[in-house]
Amino acid sequence: MKTYTDYLRFNTKQRQEFIRITDDVAAIVKRSGIDDGIVLVSAMHITAGVYVNDWEDGLIGDFQVWLEKLAPAGLPYKHHQTGEDNADAHLKRTIMGHQVIVPVTAGKLDLGPWEQVFYAEFDGQRRKRVVVKVMGV
Amino acid sequence: MKTYTDYLRFNTKQRQEFIRITDDVAAIVKRSGIDDGIVLVSAMHITAGVYVNDWEDGLIGDFQVWLEKLAPAGLPYKHHQTGEDNADAHLKRTIMGHQVIVPVTAGKLDLGPWEQVFYAEFDGQRRKRVVVKVMGV
Amino acid sequence: MKTYTDYLRFNTKQRQEFIRITDDVAAIVKRSGIDDGIVLVSAMHITAGVYVNDWEDGLIGDFQVWLEKLAPAGLPYKHHQTGEDNADAHLKRTIMGHQVIVPVTAGKLDLGPWEQVFYAEFDGQRRKRVVVKVMGV
Repeated sequence: MKTYTDYLRFNTKQRQEFIRITDDVAAIVKRSGIDDGIVLVSAMHITAGVYVNDWEDGLIGDFQVWLEKLAPAGLPYKHHQTGEDNADAHLKRTIMGHQVIVPVTAGKLDLGPWEQVFYAEFDGQRRKRVVVKVMGV
Repeated sequence: MKTYTDYLRFNTKQRQEFIRITDDVAAIVKRSGIDDGIVLVSAMHITAGVYVNDWEDGLIGDFQVWLEKLAPAGLPYKHHQTGEDNADAHLKRTIMGHQVIVPVTAGKLDLGPWEQVFYAEFDGQRRKRVVVKVMGV
Repeated sequence: MKTYTDYLRFNTKQRQEFIRITDDVAAIVKRSGIDDGIVLVSAMHITAGVYVNDWEDGLIGDFQVWLEKLAPAGLPYKHHQTGEDNADAHLKRTIMGHQVIVPVTAGKLDLGPWEQVFYAEFDGQRRKRVVVKVMGV
């Protein structure tokens, strides 16, 4: 069995940004030389998520409106008594999920026709990382 | 290390259906010959989910009522400007999750007493797939 | 490839408790002797979750208030017709997620600076388990 680990780095211009990373993950899998197995893609910061869904700007906008409704910014969160102002980002990333496992088959990401991997930043404008670990044969 | 990959296929009669797939996953693990490791069960379409919870019809109904409240159909979603009408299905599957990892121990799914694996279809009446990848020794 | 499996046991005093388990998971990884790979941490009971987020009491309180808003106790859930009273616990754990994969790199949990692993109990005061399976080289 082989393992191969790399990290993606982000520093978004906006506080909230959704960034497609399917090709970055595929490039790491290619470099790993692993033909069959899995790749874990996991946010290392707790106000960002990683999810799989459609690459369609309208739907991305729908996700953002929806998350604001379910986990609004600006409420009097207890977390803000520590000086933070990003409690909603912790909640939003919980709904989206913070990691995915993509199967690797025949040297490629084994994704359905519309599956794309996204990084969802909810408290950006600072340096963040995503760990990408490939395991297999 | 060994890997073994198979696919489950669905074409539901209803637009929304929750289908228990524990036995299908267990059968694939048995065919894999893998005794200790993990099995990834992941929806390949972005309007369906895979989750672990109780096999009890009342609770399944509760999930469906709850998802309709959190992510209603019929809102003026931006995604619908593309001609689609299923934005709520993308949101609902995000809450349920689109994949699970089941541990495999002593050749069997290492599940708690009430854990069952389900496929949650939110935009059915068409052909869909779930990838099942077993990895281990 | 090596695998190593252990179980964490809980029997909380309160019905709802969030318990940090990062050190317990790290100890199991150390005992496994695995240097590079992944560790699956997965609730074996369907009214509990496992998630990664901040170790800050205010935020934990925010999560609990938020979950009560999104998935309230005390509604006339269909599941309660079976004699159960915990449908909300099934829903709450679905939002938080029931499992995480932590990457293992250089013999340690490969976590970001604020990432902590938590067990989220939503129907406690009874015996529960979490399976921890390490896989790697």
